[in-house]
Amino acid sequence: MGKRKSGKLIIIGGHEDKENDKEILKIVAKHVGDGRLCIVTVASSVGDEQWEEYSRVFKSLGIKKLTHLDVVHRTESIDHRALKAVKDADAVFFTGGDQLKITSELGGTLVADRINEIYHNGGVIAGTSAGASVMGEIMMVSGDADKTFRIGAGLNMSPGLGFAPKLLIDQHFAERGRIGRLLAAVAHNPRYLGIGIDEDTAIVMDESKCFKVIGSGAVYVIDAHESNGQNISEAVMDTTLSIHNVKLHLLSRDDAYDLQKRCPEKGAALKSSALKSVS
Amino acid sequence: MGKRKSGKLIIIGGHEDKENDKEILKIVAKHVGDGRLCIVTVASSVGDEQWEEYSRVFKSLGIKKLTHLDVVHRTESIDHRALKAVKDADAVFFTGGDQLKITSELGGTLVADRINEIYHNGGVIAGTSAGASVMGEIMMVSGDADKTFRIGAGLNMSPGLGFAPKLLIDQHFAERGRIGRLLAAVAHNPRYLGIGIDEDTAIVMDESKCFKVIGSGAVYVIDAHESNGQNISEAVMDTTLSIHNVKLHLLSRDDAYDLQKRCPEKGAALKSSALKSVS
Repeated sequence: MGKRKSGKLIIIGGHEDKENDKEILKIVAKHVGDGRLCIVTVASSVGDEQWEEYSRVFKSLGIKKLTHLDVVHRTESIDHRALKAVKDADAVFFTGGDQLKITSELGGTLVADRINEIYHNGGVIAGTSAGASVMGEIMMVSGDADKTFRIGAGLNMSPGLGFAPKLLIDQHFAERGRIGRLLAAVAHNPRYLGIGIDEDTAIVMDESKCFKVIGSGAVYVIDAHESNGQNISEAVMDTTLSIHNVKLHLLSRDDAYDLQKRCPEKGAALKSSALKSVS
Repeated sequence: MGKRKSGKLIIIGGHEDKENDKEILKIVAKHVGDGRLCIVTVASSVGDEQWEEYSRVFKSLGIKKLTHLDVVHRTESIDHRALKAVKDADAVFFTGGDQLKITSELGGTLVADRINEIYHNGGVIAGTSAGASVMGEIMMVSGDADKTFRIGAGLNMSPGLGFAPKLLIDQHFAERGRIGRLLAAVAHNPRYLGIGIDEDTAIVMDESKCFKVIGSGAVYVIDAHESNGQNISEAVMDTTLSIHNVKLHLLSRDDAYDLQKRCPEKGAALKSSALKSVS
């Protein structure tokens, strides 16, 4: 293969439009091109319905080669059937559901190895909702939202699939009032950037270099590299979280973010070569 | 009176505990001391019920002299009865309801002048929920929450009572997912600090110098002085808001914030003389 090609991630905050303009799925389809797309419904308890819906939409967007991966039990991930679904795929789309089903059923299997290979051969890996959460090295499994975040309260993290090693991704962000839990997750270890993606919104990312926002909502970037005043390790259980001097960026369509400089760029100013490749 | 004394503001995010420890109302009562407290229920459509509840609680906390101000129509604010309620008061407590009722019924009246005088004579002005919103020079009247904030969508601002001229205050903050609308309000003119106060949480403030957090929840400080990338004035209606490089502080009990330096201080580090006076 020669020089390793850079894969592309498309990370969607859930509830992307499937009926009207289909902006986000259209961009997924554009990147898949005439390649083979594997739709992974492992996260869902209604995998067949999701396969039906997404295969219909992607067909309408011109994708001709589609396969379905719906592992129900971990042992099936080493099945011929499961491997076959990803074997010749050039791109993968993870649907929503429960992110822990994706990682617990696929993590460490030959199927996961093959998905990794697709990515590192320059393929597209897309995911929505739970399928977005799994993109990070670390992910949120559950956490209280729409209320004051209290230390020790239900915030559960788990290793993700690791395609976006610098990010900690949360979805349905504005809709479910998740800023408190994302701040808390980032406070545990500020080397991760917290990324909160609204519904019908996505980031299109070049292998850990930069990303661009598409879709109708907003993307929150929480950068706590220079934060202080955290009480996450000192405070007794149920204490309300403190964290001071966090940098917050609210990004919308066409805004970009340089992951190496940790710096946002406005849509209109999108000229730097690092960012030009994300389109 | 000689040198003007500094008034004290106690700004509460709503739903403060009234049955158990009553932490916040206890601190209000402590500051009122043996003074006369006027409970203003103008914001509410059930003013008599609120008067009954708050007078019961404040009596249980040792306040002996209580009056009730419940203006139903603006013309009453010049009434003898309304003026009498605030005439000899040393402190004022604004209950929740609709903030626009407070400002539209009281703004520019003799009653409002007298409340100002109480504050500038060193009195305590407290308010919860709608009664918190009115503390700023500018306040939010309404605004979409729990979804992506879109420019031009329902964010309405109005002049407040102006006791806290540098702040733009939002309440029920985590509970109602209001980060998006507060970012949007601040983006209109970043000279205001956005302050989002959770329920059962308050800030105790010395006349625009500094404040301290009390109660069980969190206080968000949104400082957009060094922000950029805003699209609030350029974008067409319904565009999703962008704003980059916002400083965000999440404060909890005993954390303080220096309004002049625009700098948080951790609870444990509360030693500077500027902050010592807020207690």
